Amino acid sequence: MPHISERAVEMPESPIRKLAPLATHARERGVKVYHLNIGQPDLPTPQVGLDVLRHIDRQVLEYSPSQGFRSLREKMVGYYAGYQIDLEADDIIVTSGGSEAVLFAFLSCLNPGDEIIVPEPAYANYMAFAISAGARIRTITTTIEEGFSLPKVEKFEELINERTRAILICNPNNPTGYLYTRREMNQIRDLVRKYDLYLFSDEVYREFIYTGSPYISACHLDGIEQNVVLIDSFSKRYSECGIRVGALITKNKQVRQAVMKFCQARLSPPLIGQLVAEASLDAPQEYTREVYDEYVERRKCLIDGLNRIPGVYSPIPMGAFYTVAKLPVDDAERFCAWCLNEFEYEGQTVMMAPATGFYTTPGAGVDQVRIAYVLKKEDLEQALVVLRKALEAYPGRTL
Amino acid sequence: MPHISERAVEMPESPIRKLAPLATHARERGVKVYHLNIGQPDLPTPQVGLDVLRHIDRQVLEYSPSQGFRSLREKMVGYYAGYQIDLEADDIIVTSGGSEAVLFAFLSCLNPGDEIIVPEPAYANYMAFAISAGARIRTITTTIEEGFSLPKVEKFEELINERTRAILICNPNNPTGYLYTRREMNQIRDLVRKYDLYLFSDEVYREFIYTGSPYISACHLDGIEQNVVLIDSFSKRYSECGIRVGALITKNKQVRQAVMKFCQARLSPPLIGQLVAEASLDAPQEYTREVYDEYVERRKCLIDGLNRIPGVYSPIPMGAFYTVAKLPVDDAERFCAWCLNEFEYEGQTVMMAPATGFYTTPGAGVDQVRIAYVLKKEDLEQALVVLRKALEAYPGRTL
Repeated sequence: MPHISERAVEMPESPIRKLAPLATHARERGVKVYHLNIGQPDLPTPQVGLDVLRHIDRQVLEYSPSQGFRSLREKMVGYYAGYQIDLEADDIIVTSGGSEAVLFAFLSCLNPGDEIIVPEPAYANYMAFAISAGARIRTITTTIEEGFSLPKVEKFEELINERTRAILICNPNNPTGYLYTRREMNQIRDLVRKYDLYLFSDEVYREFIYTGSPYISACHLDGIEQNVVLIDSFSKRYSECGIRVGALITKNKQVRQAVMKFCQARLSPPLIGQLVAEASLDAPQEYTREVYDEYVERRKCLIDGLNRIPGVYSPIPMGAFYTVAKLPVDDAERFCAWCLNEFEYEGQTVMMAPATGFYTTPGAGVDQVRIAYVLKKEDLEQALVVLRKALEAYPGRTL
Repeated sequence: MPHISERAVEMPESPIRKLAPLATHARERGVKVYHLNIGQPDLPTPQVGLDVLRHIDRQVLEYSPSQGFRSLREKMVGYYAGYQIDLEADDIIVTSGGSEAVLFAFLSCLNPGDEIIVPEPAYANYMAFAISAGARIRTITTTIEEGFSLPKVEKFEELINERTRAILICNPNNPTGYLYTRREMNQIRDLVRKYDLYLFSDEVYREFIYTGSPYISACHLDGIEQNVVLIDSFSKRYSECGIRVGALITKNKQVRQAVMKFCQARLSPPLIGQLVAEASLDAPQEYTREVYDEYVERRKCLIDGLNRIPGVYSPIPMGAFYTVAKLPVDDAERFCAWCLNEFEYEGQTVMMAPATGFYTTPGAGVDQVRIAYVLKKEDLEQALVVLRKALEAYPGRTL
């Protein structure tokens, strides 16, 4: 029997899926599981997006252009203008979700062995795409004590060598909810310019910023227009993760031409998803505001609730719909598994993502979990009660 | 400005897209272009597939499972049983089109530097996916004179070395329409077994076999069940290329586990496409028969027509909806460009795919084109008239 590839062996298991069999086990023993582990919003897709399906009048569901429909890309230009991001339709390449945008960015910009600097904790799948492309992720650890703010320039420069080709940020951040300040973004800009690096900037959560702090896009940074590759997605914004429509955006024509070769090889992004995405851009302001208000309330509910549990600490996330919290436990992965395997409170338990999966530094985040607030408030409140009880009962508690 | 990756430079331009700007030019000068270059069927998607969109009652277009919906995979089991391919739902992983299945097969089974033997002419994007995965395609040339039948075992063995990890076939074949015989499939099986190789078998055209010859799937071959990775797609079968739903199928559990890591990284295949695909499997027999009959007629029309043009030769394709034909020209790429740039007959011209893009051997196929018969019969007939006139007028004709 032939062997599987070394990169397949190297691929990490997704931290949000690792415990999935245990969740099944919990359900089998009749326990209700509150899913705080996943980033699948429960909010409705905009009605205009669903309506486009109901009124489809095509007879052939044919290939769409490899770069995505022009009408969609032109409408996206208007959307970005609302964020003071000045684009042309040709700067935008539509991808099968933000995931494909990350993969194609890596394949197009990096050679095997090239290094990308990423602040950790970080979205775990960046690692998977780097392995797919043969690139190497070098992480800079941010700490919960400092609210996951960006480390000093020196920390970056310690990692920069002749193989360093890019910095990758997620802003607002998954998993921490951190929003980079103007000072931090300028620091990144200066590094990118000084060492002529790519800046891959994943900004799929820009709708979800709660603090009044300004959103500084990588596209707002002067002087590095040719270095910036923006990663985007419709998934979270419109609660339509299943349509698989994202985008890779850059002013760098050479990069676009390279990316297009990979796009042409896979023929086209999803046709129907693009129709839904294009229609969703017409969602009424009311939709966006309601979704926003809902997350504001959930965030308050979750963060207040967490910080009231003895020994638990969560910084206040400024954006996205996650937080990384510190728990009074010996090992958060063991605790999360125990919640699913052995614990229940009034027939309920919680599922969280152990934070170690978002770090590459050994031992980092060992007492932390990522919690997503994509459940309705009543469920979040109930989940907080269950978590408190679980922490009281857990044999490995450190309080 | 940072450089793009070496593999992006190495990526070949798609042979069916290379001439696209010239086609635009032809249209701009008011010339109607018959598109014989692309594999986008013009036939309708099954009504049941379209209806599922019109009656969608979901409120959230959420992620689907990374391996695809179980209900879809279970239904596919029944579909394959109709071809004497015995599967379980767990053997099937749903992908974003057959394209993603090829990429994930390469990423999961091959290390950088590993070699895949592919009979040429071959579907050009295999090369692109191999480059993406750092693998190397080694081609075995099949010839139009021998009707593109499989070369002798010795030809394969000449290429096999310690880096050889796989054989890749497309059956029925794109671009030649060739269907591998039982003898040829047994020859491949013996090689796969002898050298313990993977057999990647792309069988997306199995519905389109016109000669009464038996369809021998890689899954029908005894003794290499753990080596076979089947690549499949709904695109061609149901004329729904835009839904981006394909599959990677294997009995090899280790390979499936490896592939699932890549699937989890990209989260999920398209949700709505899967709904369409699942419904399409219920298309009435009548749909399949009508589509089949239509292709039978087009094939006859095209191949008869081609072989009646002086100096043109096309073998009779046994399957798929393409043929590779030899033209009496100095250079088919130059001829195809000339048709778009300089020629017209009664305000019309033809666009074909120069066959060199389907070969890696320098000079191979230089007087050949791939022609797809995805146009209705009247258009094919008219395109044949135009092609005949173009060949008469072309300055580089060799007759």
